[in-house]
Amino acid sequence: MEAKLKELKTLLIEIDDLKSAASLLHWDQATYMPSGGGSARSRQLATLERLAHEKFIDPAFGKILEDLRSYEESLPYDSDDASLLRVTRRKYEKAVKVPAAFMAQLYRHTASSYEVWTKARPANDFALVEPILEKTLDLSRQLADFFPGYKNIADPLIDYSDYGMKASTVLELFDKLREQLIPMVQRITSQSLADDSCLHKTFSEEKQKAFGLEVIQCFGFDFKRGRQDKTHHPFMTKFSLGDVRITTRYKENDLSEGLFSTMHESGHALYELGIPMDFEGLPLADGTSAGVHESQSRLWENLVGRSRSFWNFFYPKLQKTFSDQLGSVSLDTFYRAINKVERSLIRTDADEVTYNLHVMLRFNFELDLLEGRLPVRDLAEAWRERYKTDIGIAPPDDRDGILQDVHWFAGTIGGSFQGYTLGNILSVQFFESALNAHPEIPKEVEKGEFGTLHSWLKENIYQYGSKFTASELVERATGGPLSIDPYIRYLKKKYGELYKL
Amino acid sequence: MEAKLKELKTLLIEIDDLKSAASLLHWDQATYMPSGGGSARSRQLATLERLAHEKFIDPAFGKILEDLRSYEESLPYDSDDASLLRVTRRKYEKAVKVPAAFMAQLYRHTASSYEVWTKARPANDFALVEPILEKTLDLSRQLADFFPGYKNIADPLIDYSDYGMKASTVLELFDKLREQLIPMVQRITSQSLADDSCLHKTFSEEKQKAFGLEVIQCFGFDFKRGRQDKTHHPFMTKFSLGDVRITTRYKENDLSEGLFSTMHESGHALYELGIPMDFEGLPLADGTSAGVHESQSRLWENLVGRSRSFWNFFYPKLQKTFSDQLGSVSLDTFYRAINKVERSLIRTDADEVTYNLHVMLRFNFELDLLEGRLPVRDLAEAWRERYKTDIGIAPPDDRDGILQDVHWFAGTIGGSFQGYTLGNILSVQFFESALNAHPEIPKEVEKGEFGTLHSWLKENIYQYGSKFTASELVERATGGPLSIDPYIRYLKKKYGELYKL
Repeated sequence: MEAKLKELKTLLIEIDDLKSAASLLHWDQATYMPSGGGSARSRQLATLERLAHEKFIDPAFGKILEDLRSYEESLPYDSDDASLLRVTRRKYEKAVKVPAAFMAQLYRHTASSYEVWTKARPANDFALVEPILEKTLDLSRQLADFFPGYKNIADPLIDYSDYGMKASTVLELFDKLREQLIPMVQRITSQSLADDSCLHKTFSEEKQKAFGLEVIQCFGFDFKRGRQDKTHHPFMTKFSLGDVRITTRYKENDLSEGLFSTMHESGHALYELGIPMDFEGLPLADGTSAGVHESQSRLWENLVGRSRSFWNFFYPKLQKTFSDQLGSVSLDTFYRAINKVERSLIRTDADEVTYNLHVMLRFNFELDLLEGRLPVRDLAEAWRERYKTDIGIAPPDDRDGILQDVHWFAGTIGGSFQGYTLGNILSVQFFESALNAHPEIPKEVEKGEFGTLHSWLKENIYQYGSKFTASELVERATGGPLSIDPYIRYLKKKYGELYKL
Repeated sequence: MEAKLKELKTLLIEIDDLKSAASLLHWDQATYMPSGGGSARSRQLATLERLAHEKFIDPAFGKILEDLRSYEESLPYDSDDASLLRVTRRKYEKAVKVPAAFMAQLYRHTASSYEVWTKARPANDFALVEPILEKTLDLSRQLADFFPGYKNIADPLIDYSDYGMKASTVLELFDKLREQLIPMVQRITSQSLADDSCLHKTFSEEKQKAFGLEVIQCFGFDFKRGRQDKTHHPFMTKFSLGDVRITTRYKENDLSEGLFSTMHESGHALYELGIPMDFEGLPLADGTSAGVHESQSRLWENLVGRSRSFWNFFYPKLQKTFSDQLGSVSLDTFYRAINKVERSLIRTDADEVTYNLHVMLRFNFELDLLEGRLPVRDLAEAWRERYKTDIGIAPPDDRDGILQDVHWFAGTIGGSFQGYTLGNILSVQFFESALNAHPEIPKEVEKGEFGTLHSWLKENIYQYGSKFTASELVERATGGPLSIDPYIRYLKKKYGELYKL
């Protein structure tokens, strides 16, 4: 069994080497690659992804997994080896249902689709991506159809990112959430807008960067095992447990852009950096779901980074960094500015209260597209309409409309967005549990100390990698199932203090 | 045949995708990777190289090649398809002689060896790399022994980088060259040293970078298909014909460091950028040998970049960039400074006259090590001794002695260095031919125009990629075989004007 397990791990690590190489190719494409490298890069990415998939679905690999079944059953459920075998088997059984040739086609398509999107967005050219999205939709449906027996065609796609979730569960959850959010947004936006002009002066990129890096270093980001670079669409990526990178973007006339995206991505990175080195190269060395991953980014970005406790400590430092711009701006004004609630166009820039409205309409669009209720050619228009009804503001162009998010241009339609709202919900649920265990956390945050919070997250979330499913993890860490109650309580309390609710 | 050829190309491109991914992993390791990524990166590199090798030596691949033999024979020698088949077959026949498991071991070793070297060099710690070099030597010998029948154990290794060259040919050539160089170096270094203090003021890195980029843009470097980054050991690398990158390093107290390494690496890059796009992903899309590649870097660095014609145009610009430092320094003083000949320690910083002495002693060391005349444990000491006798100056430490070059720590011992001197020789031979064809070139260079020279190089060298062997290419481009005569003529003329010879 020892030898079999070793053989399995060797194969898994080899597959991970290919995937990690692909991740580096992606990262480079989004950070440093000259434009001339685009077409070959798409091809190279498709090759690496395909080879990794081929190796994973090799029947010889399945045989080893099968041989290890009785060994797995002899081990405690939460042991490393049992978990490795369980998670690997789950992924294997899913992977073998999809022919390698199809995956190769999908990888080729998404890699080149991304290249087209990088041109279409600045050019505000939906027509350029329309035929591509048609194909993406077609491939997404085909992918789902390799998993017959689903209730909703989105289910198998959601399963890739948020294992165990179903479209129906998500819809039900989102309905409950919307019921609470809509009146909250209405009540807030009927009041006078917060003044956030202090964030829209001119802030040198260099100083923004230095400040952001200082903050995430305090959070616990280890620059020996990671770095930050610039990109159009911020993301976190990992090439090994010793090399976890984040990207960000800065706007000289918007201080919040770089600052909060840096904190956000650092939250994703802390999760990966907290996974035990023993898991290196294995399927356990990953966050357990899109939702749980997002809960970590949102926890650091919002629960910490947009809290008054945090700025009690950091605002004087920020004022010192930008004395001309913020020297005479009070903490209270700044705090209101970074928590301004408004009807806006861009998901990633949206405030905590309206953010989920952006996500929920995208989730609905995915279902509408997959289920054939909405043809791709009507998508840009439908987007504008839906923004008008749901958010109360329509994008003047497609650049800041349908073209704003990379997801549908770099992956499937279906399963791409629900994790963002699940993450918001979970971020508060986890944070509340951490506070219950350690009521001193806010006091520490006021002193720029994050050790207790970071340790609680490591112990209750990070250290497990993807050993446990999202629902198992939530149960273990919070003592109950996923619930929107803490999230709603949090919003009501925080925004009740900022606005009349 | 059409279909077979297409199948062959598909396989070759897939192999190239793996190799290009490995190149990106290397580039990242040398530019941006945080230290924590080192050990996984070595593993990932070894995996990619091994998979590429395994795919290449697959008997099914050999079968396709064999099936295409009669097709190849029906085509003109210099047609693209015949050349592709010929070059691929040559590489294939070499590759199949080496077991995949051995290559995997070698890749693993060199990848981790590089990691150790990056620590050993700054720490001046030869002991740290000694056991590693022992193993490198052992593996290098084993590699050579997969090609029985060689006259010299270095021959199969030289063949990897300078196909067709033998240790005996190189030794004979180097002996002739040494005969000419030794008295030249003695005569020059017995005169008073040129004053190069103007290069050793303080030059901001940012301005150095901007100036260097302007120069190579004039050379013809296309920033849409390439970029420049910083590294410890400058190099050129390629991820596709649309993405050719160079790296450089700057010293604030040495203007020549960044400037000439930028021109040098751009010369390598221009070669690759001049290869026809039709060759993308195929074995033809490469320089034909280490020597010919180096001839291109040295041509732009030395024949152009250290010429008076070049600086007639660029020196006023450089003076404007660094007015405090160079405003009162005459062109003549500057020209003498950048062509200062002296006995020095670092190969990459050496002047044109002494440079080859650095290379030749390394080549001799490779033979001594491979043939067992020199044990690794004595290498650092032997290095110091040999520098004293050959160059006339002994390194005070190993950092600037045996540890200075990456080659033996990132590849085999054997075949690593001869290309540098072959390149110097060829750079002049090619340049002379270009001047014969276009005597107006120096006048154009004086106006900052490089189009005629660049076109001649594209037409006579770049466009062929690795279609022709080095000797075929030299014959075609210059009308004769490799010869040291143009090189010696060039040195005597240039340095005869600068020194009494």
